[in-house]
Amino acid sequence: MSCLVSEFVISTRGKGTYEITEQVAAGVARSRVESGSVTVFVRHTSCSLILMENADPSARRDLEKFFEQLVPENTSWFEHTAEGRDDSTSHIRSVLTRSSEVIPIANHEMQLGTWQGIFLFEHRRAPHRRQVVVTVIGNALDSGAANR
Amino acid sequence: MSCLVSEFVISTRGKGTYEITEQVAAGVARSRVESGSVTVFVRHTSCSLILMENADPSARRDLEKFFEQLVPENTSWFEHTAEGRDDSTSHIRSVLTRSSEVIPIANHEMQLGTWQGIFLFEHRRAPHRRQVVVTVIGNALDSGAANR
Amino acid sequence: MSCLVSEFVISTRGKGTYEITEQVAAGVARSRVESGSVTVFVRHTSCSLILMENADPSARRDLEKFFEQLVPENTSWFEHTAEGRDDSTSHIRSVLTRSSEVIPIANHEMQLGTWQGIFLFEHRRAPHRRQVVVTVIGNALDSGAANR
Repeated sequence: MSCLVSEFVISTRGKGTYEITEQVAAGVARSRVESGSVTVFVRHTSCSLILMENADPSARRDLEKFFEQLVPENTSWFEHTAEGRDDSTSHIRSVLTRSSEVIPIANHEMQLGTWQGIFLFEHRRAPHRRQVVVTVIGNALDSGAANR
Repeated sequence: MSCLVSEFVISTRGKGTYEITEQVAAGVARSRVESGSVTVFVRHTSCSLILMENADPSARRDLEKFFEQLVPENTSWFEHTAEGRDDSTSHIRSVLTRSSEVIPIANHEMQLGTWQGIFLFEHRRAPHRRQVVVTVIGNALDSGAANR
Repeated sequence: MSCLVSEFVISTRGKGTYEITEQVAAGVARSRVESGSVTVFVRHTSCSLILMENADPSARRDLEKFFEQLVPENTSWFEHTAEGRDDSTSHIRSVLTRSSEVIPIANHEMQLGTWQGIFLFEHRRAPHRRQVVVTVIGNALDSGAANR
C-alpha cells in the first residue's frame, strides 16, 4: 500500500466552472498506485468541486445559471455581506455541492465515466487562486501483489 | 493494509431511487478488510448516490417529488436539451447530490446507522444500466494486527 | 500504512450547526498517520455534515435560514410526517448536503483551509445524540519511510 499527497493551484477568472481533470490525473500518474482511490479537496469555503458532463459546455451554462437562481445574490435578508453580495451565496453554493470528490483508481487510471469531468466551481465574482489537494491511496505497482 | 476495487451494474427502470446497500455490502464481504472504509462511486453524470431513510418508502417519495419541483423539467431557459427535457435536470440533480459516498468499516461491516440505506438516484426518464464502483481500503483480517 | 477507526457522540440542542473540528482533529492526533486522509461520517439521515466558514457566525445564520426556505416545513404535500413536520425536511436537507467529508492529512495535520470548519448540521427540532465515525488512513509516522 502507498499514499501520496500533493497540491496544485488553479487561478480562476471569477464565477464559473473550471476543469481540473488533467491536473488530478497528473497526481495519480505521479503516484505508483495501481488500484485504490484519489481524493480531491478544495481548501476554501467559497468555491467547490463537482463531477459534471465534460462534452457540451451548454450543460455547464445551465448549471451555473440554475445556481444563480437557486441562491440569488439579491437576497434581501442576507446578513453576511462583509465581502460583498457574493459572500453568503458563495458559502451556500459550496455547501450545496462538495468540498471533496473521491474517484476510484484501477489499472493505474481514474475510473471516471466517459462523460465525467472534475471541475472547480468558483462562486466568487473576483479572480482567485485556489488550492486543491490530491490524495492518492492504494496498492502500489511494485508492492501490489503482496496485498492481494 | 489491503485494497480491493470491484464493480457492479444496476439496471434502472427510469426516474427513482434504487437501494444498492446489499451489493455494496457484498463488495465489503469479498474483501478481507476488517477496519477501514468503502467508497461507492457512479460513473455517470445523470444519476447519483444518496444515503437515505431505508424503512418508510414515503420518505423517498417526498424526496423524489421535491427534486422534481426544485429542478423542474419545464424550465424554459435550459439550453442543454439534446437528449430530452430530462437532460440538464439530470446533471443539475446529480450535482446537488453526490457521485460518491464513503462509509466506514469496523468489525468487517459497514458502519451504517440503523436507518441508513445506500441508494442510486436515477434522474433519467428512460431505463439505464448504471456502473457502480466499490473500493474497499483498510486493515485486512490476516494483516491487521501488524498495523495496529 | 495504517488505519484507525474511532467514534464520538455529539449532543445537539435541536436545529443548527455545531462545530466538530476539534473532535475530528483529536482522532487524527490519536492515529500515527502522517500523510493520508480522514473521513468523517454521520450515522443518521436527519442530520448531515458540511465544511463551512468558521469565523463569522452570520455566515451560518444565513445558511440555516436559506435551508428553512429551500425545504420548508409547511410543505403541504409531504407524506412522510410520522415523526413531525421536520421529518421529510430533515432527510431532504441531509441529501442536499453530505453524510461524509474527506479531508487530506499532511505533516500529521488536517489540511483544512484557514476558514474551513467541520460542522454537524442538525435538521431536527428536538435535541439528539449524534454518532460520528472518524476513519484515518495513511502513512504512519514510524512506517511511512518504507511506503514512500
